Amino acid sequence: MSSDTGSFTRLESIVLNDDSLDPAQSELLSELLGRSPLKDVVALLERLNPFRAALVLRLLPRRRSIAAFDALDSVHQADLVAALGDESLADFFGALNPDDRVALLDELPAEIATRLLTGLDESEHGFTSAVLGFPKRSVGRRMSPKTPFVLAGASAGEALADLREQAESAETIYTVPVVEDDRRLVGVTSLRALFTASPDVPVSELMDQPEYAVASDNDEETARWALSLDLLALPIVDESHRLIGILTMDDSFDIVEDADNEDSARSGGSEPLQQPYLTTPVMKLVRSRLVWLAVLAVSALLTVQVLDAFEDALAAAVVLSLFIPLLTGTGGNTGNQAATTVTRALALGDVRGRDRGKVLWREARVGLVLGAALGLVFGSLLGVLYGAPIGLVLGLTLLIVCTLAASVGGLMPIVAKAVGADPAVFSNPFITTFVDATGLIIYFLIARAVLGL
Amino acid sequence: MSSDTGSFTRLESIVLNDDSLDPAQSELLSELLGRSPLKDVVALLERLNPFRAALVLRLLPRRRSIAAFDALDSVHQADLVAALGDESLADFFGALNPDDRVALLDELPAEIATRLLTGLDESEHGFTSAVLGFPKRSVGRRMSPKTPFVLAGASAGEALADLREQAESAETIYTVPVVEDDRRLVGVTSLRALFTASPDVPVSELMDQPEYAVASDNDEETARWALSLDLLALPIVDESHRLIGILTMDDSFDIVEDADNEDSARSGGSEPLQQPYLTTPVMKLVRSRLVWLAVLAVSALLTVQVLDAFEDALAAAVVLSLFIPLLTGTGGNTGNQAATTVTRALALGDVRGRDRGKVLWREARVGLVLGAALGLVFGSLLGVLYGAPIGLVLGLTLLIVCTLAASVGGLMPIVAKAVGADPAVFSNPFITTFVDATGLIIYFLIARAVLGL
Repeated sequence: MSSDTGSFTRLESIVLNDDSLDPAQSELLSELLGRSPLKDVVALLERLNPFRAALVLRLLPRRRSIAAFDALDSVHQADLVAALGDESLADFFGALNPDDRVALLDELPAEIATRLLTGLDESEHGFTSAVLGFPKRSVGRRMSPKTPFVLAGASAGEALADLREQAESAETIYTVPVVEDDRRLVGVTSLRALFTASPDVPVSELMDQPEYAVASDNDEETARWALSLDLLALPIVDESHRLIGILTMDDSFDIVEDADNEDSARSGGSEPLQQPYLTTPVMKLVRSRLVWLAVLAVSALLTVQVLDAFEDALAAAVVLSLFIPLLTGTGGNTGNQAATTVTRALALGDVRGRDRGKVLWREARVGLVLGAALGLVFGSLLGVLYGAPIGLVLGLTLLIVCTLAASVGGLMPIVAKAVGADPAVFSNPFITTFVDATGLIIYFLIARAVLGL
Repeated sequence: MSSDTGSFTRLESIVLNDDSLDPAQSELLSELLGRSPLKDVVALLERLNPFRAALVLRLLPRRRSIAAFDALDSVHQADLVAALGDESLADFFGALNPDDRVALLDELPAEIATRLLTGLDESEHGFTSAVLGFPKRSVGRRMSPKTPFVLAGASAGEALADLREQAESAETIYTVPVVEDDRRLVGVTSLRALFTASPDVPVSELMDQPEYAVASDNDEETARWALSLDLLALPIVDESHRLIGILTMDDSFDIVEDADNEDSARSGGSEPLQQPYLTTPVMKLVRSRLVWLAVLAVSALLTVQVLDAFEDALAAAVVLSLFIPLLTGTGGNTGNQAATTVTRALALGDVRGRDRGKVLWREARVGLVLGAALGLVFGSLLGVLYGAPIGLVLGLTLLIVCTLAASVGGLMPIVAKAVGADPAVFSNPFITTFVDATGLIIYFLIARAVLGL
C-alpha cells in the first residue's frame, strides 16, 4: 500500500500501548497523525477503544477529524458518543449527511438521539426528519434529501449558476436531476454535460431519460441495480413522481456491503457483528453464535432419533456406522454448494421467485451428475475394501443423497425468500441438518434392502 | 421498483418465447425497448442467449446499446462477441473504457483479442496497452489511464479551462489530481471545489493531501479502502510517484463485488461462476463443484479410517454411533462460524496476519463458552435418556470439540492467507472435514476412558 508504513507503526504503538500520554507524546502523535493518510487514521480509530479513539480525534485538525468520524461505520460512531465531549459530538453530528445521521441515531439510546436532534439547526433538523419518516429497508431511509436540481426550461449557463448556489448545501452536484416547475422529475443531466456545453444550449437537450427509484422501494435491490449501471447518484421521487432526494454511489455501496456482511455471517450460521471483529467483546461473539448453534444442535437430535430407529441394523452390521460422516458430509457439502450459489444469485437479482421451477430442474440434474460420479468412484473404492454389497449400498446412497441435497439446497433459499425469511439463514447449516437426517434414512433403507438386514 | 412492469413483461415474453421475429414484432419490440429504463434492458440481456441478446442490442439506438453493453459484465460481453457483427463489435469495443476493455480481452481467445486490439485507433490502443502491462490483481490493471489533472501552479479559472479540454477524453473530471510539471502527484482537488471557487484562487489552496495508490498495489485492498473513505476516484501513481491513472468508485465496486462473489462461492465449496446462474450451462455448474466435492469426500475417508480404528468400541457399545452426526455437525458448525467471521474480517481489513495470536485467544474463549453451554445442556439431556455415563462422554466431547473447532476455524483463514491461498476456501467445507476426524478421535478416547471399553 502507499502509506508511510514506518510512521503508521510508530503511531499505532504509541496509542495502543501507552496507558497515558504525556504532553511531549501528544505533540509527537499530533505530528504523526498530520502526516498519515486518512485511511491509516481511520484504520487506527477502528482498532482503538472509544476513549483512545476520542483522544486521537481531538488531536486531529477539525476538518480531518470530521472526515475521519464520517468514515467510521455507525456502530463505531455510536460507541464514540459517550467518549466525545458534548461540543465535539454536536460538531461531528452536524457535519454528517442526513442519511448517515439517521444511521447513527438508529444505534443510540432514545434520549441521546433526541438531545442530538434538538441540537441541530432548523434546516438540518428538517432534512433529518424527512429521512427518519421512511421505514427501514426503504431507499428513502438511505437517501440524502439534499439533492441538487435544475429546471428543464433553463439554459446550460443558467443551470450552472443555479448549481453554484446549491453547491454549499447539496450532497453532490455531479449528477443533476432535471425537474419541471412542480418538482416532477423529467430527466437527469450532469455537471460534466452542463460544464462542457455552450452556455445557451437548453438543459432539455443535455438530459437523458432518468433512471430513478421511488422512496418506498427496497434499499438493497435499488442499490444493486444503481451500482450495476455505474450511476454516480440516483434521483429518488415520491409517489407523485416529485424529486425528494438522491442516493449517491457511496451510499449504495454501504447498503450492499451491509447486506453482504449479513449474508456472509448468516450463511456461516451466526448473526452479523456490525462492528469490527477485533473490537467486538468475546461475549458478544458468543451471543451472535450461540442461538444458531443451539437451534442446529436441537435439530441434529433428529439424527439421533433416526439412528436410534435403525439401531438393530447398526448392531447387525457395525460396519455401516463407519460411513456415516462420509455420507452426511458429502450430502451437506452438495446442499451447501447449491444453497450458496442460489442465495448469491438471489442477492444479485439473477434469480427471482418465479424461477423456482427452473432452479429445481437445474439443481436436480447437477445433483444427479455429481451423485453418479461420486457414487461410482467411492462405491467402487469402498466395495473393494469392504465388499461389493457395501459398495453398492454406498454408491446408491450417494447418488440419491446428492440429487436430493442439490435440489433441496437450491430450492430452500427461494422458499425462504418467498415466506419473508433471510435466504442466507437457510443456506449452509440448516440444509446440512436436514440432509443429514434424510440421508441417513435413505442409507439405512437401502442397506436393509441390499444386505437383507 | 420504479419501472413500467407491464411493458417489461411484454418485452420479455416477446424476446424469450418467439422463435423468430417478424418485422411487425421488431417494430413493437423497438418501441418497447425505447420506453424501458436501462436497468430493465440490461436485466433482459442477461437472461437471453447470445444471439437473442445481439438482436436486442441491434434494435436499440446506438448510444443506449453502447451503455447497455458497457453495463454487462465481461464474461457476458465475451459470450456476445461471436453473435455481434464485426462492425458493431468494433463499435462497442472502442466505446469501452480501457480497464473494461482489458477485462473483456482477458475473457476472449487470443486471436479475437488481437484482432480487436489492432482495430483500435492509436491513442485508445496506447491506453489499453498501458493497462495490459500491469499484472492481474494489481490496481494498475483495473485503473483508467485516462485521468484528468491540473497543475499545482494554475489558478482555479485556468484549471477549469484545462478540464474543459480534457473532458472529451478523461474517464472522470470530478476528482482532479493536482501535479507538478513533471507529473508528480502533490494533491487532489475536485471539479466542485474549482467550480465554486473564485477564478483567481490558486489551485494549491483548493487541494487536499492526496489519498492515492501505487499501480502495483493489490486491487482488492486498494478498492476496499477507497470505498471505505467514500472516494469518488483515487489517483494511481507509478514507483516514482508520477500520476499514471485513476481508479473510479464504480471500478472499485466491481473489484470488491468480484472478490465477494469469489468468497461466497468458495465458502460454499464451489468455484465462482462469473456469469449469471440461470444462463450457466448445467455441466459448467457441475465442473464448478465436482472437484471440491471430490476433494472433500476423499478427505472424509479419514473419518472412515478413524471409525475403523475404533470399531471394537463401536461393536461393544452400538449406542455410541447414534451421536456421531450430532457431534460432527456441531463441531463443523462451530468451526464454520469462526471461519466465516474471520474470513470476512480479513476481507474487510479488520484483521491482519499479525493478529493471529489475538484471533486464536478470542476464538478459544468463544469456543470454550459455547462448548460449556452446549455440553451442559445436551450432556444432561442425553444423560437422562441414555444414562449418565453417555451424558458425561457427550458433554466432555462437546466442550473440547467446540473449543478446538472455534480455534482452528478462526486460525485457518489467517494461515491460508499467509501461505497465499484463498481464505474462503479454508472456510466451511474444509474445516468441517478436519473437525469431523479429530472430533471423532476425541469422542472415542473419552468414551473408552469413561465407559472403560
